[in-house]
Amino acid sequence: MSSALGRVAEVRSGPIDDAFATLVRRPDVISFAVGAPDPALLPGDLIASLAADAIAKYGSAALQYGLTQGFPPLLDQAGILLSNRGIGCRPEQLHIATGGSGALHNVCMALLAPGSVVLVETPTYGPAVKVFRSHGATVVAVESDDRGIMPDALDVALAQHDPAFVYLLPTFQNPTGRTMPTRRREQIAEVITRRGALVVEDDVYVDLRYWGESLPAFWSFAPEHTVYITSLSKTLAPALRIGIAVLTDNLREPVFALKQGIDMQTSAFNQAIAAEFLASPVGSAHLERVVAAYAAKLDTVVTALAKHFPAEFTWTVPDGGMFLWVDGPAGFDADALLGPALESGVAFLPGSAFFTDAAPRNAMRLSFAGAPLGEIDRGIAVLARLCELP
Amino acid sequence: MSSALGRVAEVRSGPIDDAFATLVRRPDVISFAVGAPDPALLPGDLIASLAADAIAKYGSAALQYGLTQGFPPLLDQAGILLSNRGIGCRPEQLHIATGGSGALHNVCMALLAPGSVVLVETPTYGPAVKVFRSHGATVVAVESDDRGIMPDALDVALAQHDPAFVYLLPTFQNPTGRTMPTRRREQIAEVITRRGALVVEDDVYVDLRYWGESLPAFWSFAPEHTVYITSLSKTLAPALRIGIAVLTDNLREPVFALKQGIDMQTSAFNQAIAAEFLASPVGSAHLERVVAAYAAKLDTVVTALAKHFPAEFTWTVPDGGMFLWVDGPAGFDADALLGPALESGVAFLPGSAFFTDAAPRNAMRLSFAGAPLGEIDRGIAVLARLCELP
Repeated sequence: MSSALGRVAEVRSGPIDDAFATLVRRPDVISFAVGAPDPALLPGDLIASLAADAIAKYGSAALQYGLTQGFPPLLDQAGILLSNRGIGCRPEQLHIATGGSGALHNVCMALLAPGSVVLVETPTYGPAVKVFRSHGATVVAVESDDRGIMPDALDVALAQHDPAFVYLLPTFQNPTGRTMPTRRREQIAEVITRRGALVVEDDVYVDLRYWGESLPAFWSFAPEHTVYITSLSKTLAPALRIGIAVLTDNLREPVFALKQGIDMQTSAFNQAIAAEFLASPVGSAHLERVVAAYAAKLDTVVTALAKHFPAEFTWTVPDGGMFLWVDGPAGFDADALLGPALESGVAFLPGSAFFTDAAPRNAMRLSFAGAPLGEIDRGIAVLARLCELP
Repeated sequence: MSSALGRVAEVRSGPIDDAFATLVRRPDVISFAVGAPDPALLPGDLIASLAADAIAKYGSAALQYGLTQGFPPLLDQAGILLSNRGIGCRPEQLHIATGGSGALHNVCMALLAPGSVVLVETPTYGPAVKVFRSHGATVVAVESDDRGIMPDALDVALAQHDPAFVYLLPTFQNPTGRTMPTRRREQIAEVITRRGALVVEDDVYVDLRYWGESLPAFWSFAPEHTVYITSLSKTLAPALRIGIAVLTDNLREPVFALKQGIDMQTSAFNQAIAAEFLASPVGSAHLERVVAAYAAKLDTVVTALAKHFPAEFTWTVPDGGMFLWVDGPAGFDADALLGPALESGVAFLPGSAFFTDAAPRNAMRLSFAGAPLGEIDRGIAVLARLCELP
């Protein structure tokens, strides 16, 4: 038997997977590790009721094989959702994928082959790097600052690498929580358009804004050069696996054709539930409740950090999303801290999980979404005490 | 922008996709084209009720991110289901994928790369050939008879091609309806084991047996050389996208790692519903009702074929599944018949869709599952009349 397991070397279990597996076994741990919703905010009764509504309304269409592009009522609702984000795409550009990760995978299947290059921010979402590499791509990190990827560095990298695409998380970035300001979006769009490049915009946290004004999606500054990906996992429920993508015209046929071989189509049942959720005022009320709860958690984490952490540590204070980024002094070793932290009942992810290669070891990603509000102060205090040790 | 769209050439829309898209627009057509369940047999009330039960029983675990391998209660139920098919695997070999197609894609991601070879039966399930090619594999057809792939021809092909795997549909094969007898399973298992090869066994129709005794899965004859794939799409509902796989030990780590990048995990919500379905006596009662309904349809199709079709046509009479295969005389052109048939309100698939290259044009695949029982005789009569035309 020939063995073609080369892809696998790039995707072996990483720190996020390990953290998740550990946390499943250790429900006692106060976890700042995983970008998952607060279980208490997952609306079980609402979803059971929407499921019954969806079956009553759509009948066998919600249970049968369906169209690869997506379930038409959800495509309609997705169009409304996205137009509120400044994304005025045509209906035929929309695609419902099996989660945001499914959308990214489908696009990678169409665009990547051994030898491809993907440009990413520094730091970036670590699991996406593994996905790009599993499709044979080389991943090149581009210099970034607290406003995101830098225009001049991107310009040079585009000329040098001719990448398949540039992977950006402009809003409430995972892992740093930073948001690319409008002016930087314009500058990056100018570079991308001039170079004829393609951006894949990963925008799964955008609905979780706690302060400040909404910004138009990067897509709106370079619509013909952007694939946009969002998801209902962070606001409704991860287990529905509903991702929404806006495809460029040249990607529609290949992505739909490949999707048939990936999983035929996204669950029409879950798509019907999602359509009912987006169409219903109950859906907006749920979103308001979620945003209020996470805003309180972020506030509590920031207060606890200021109260407990040593003076030489700094952190981002995001306007939304699930993450903030803590930088320690030069000698601080977050990777070495992970084991003792778990022993002390607190989990986080070392910042090194979010770099493509040479990774600083003095940073931590903290997710404030999952931990119960009443345990956040204690968890941060435990972590702070460990950070003070020599 | 570099363009790596090479994969796509192999997966452009094919006859099954075209048929599905046509049928969505033409509900008036009597369809023998698509291997989809009868919409009237999709248990909407049952699924709404199981969804409410699953949320009440599992709470946020049915709505949250979960383990890549699968939702533990469904893994337990899948183990029971498979042991009833002669598949005595260890629990850690089980994997819940996003449909049977998702299971096949996950395995292809782990095993195929440009230059790989996949051996298939003649004819074989056409969309799988497209999937293998989209992963860069060369697909080689091996001589087959009415008992399936032939041992001597397989032996020669294994020696010649050193394939990544051999793709087999031993039970109620799509497209022919044929089943590999026990003796042939033993012979093929001997060849596979002696050559150290791997079989991917696609077994999504096995629960739809209308006559005769169940056979042990091919897996049971060569457990260390077989990846087994089955699904609840044909018995419960396609839209839940629940596939079940039994992985060989060397595939567990790569498949789980790759699955994280494909869609993180299969919908825990749908997995919880499936677990409740398999655990419940209501589930067995539903399956009995489905089997009785399809048995009546198969009987009606076979009677109608004998009554209406010209004498020079022959067909398989399967013991189960959704398909039978009609062979016409040498001059008959099923491909040319498809357009006129649709105009006359009847759909089928030309047999040529199920060959890797040189395809005979004188065969048709008829699916008897989807058409309403009361319209089958009329549909077959229309088709027969068109087959008589010069």
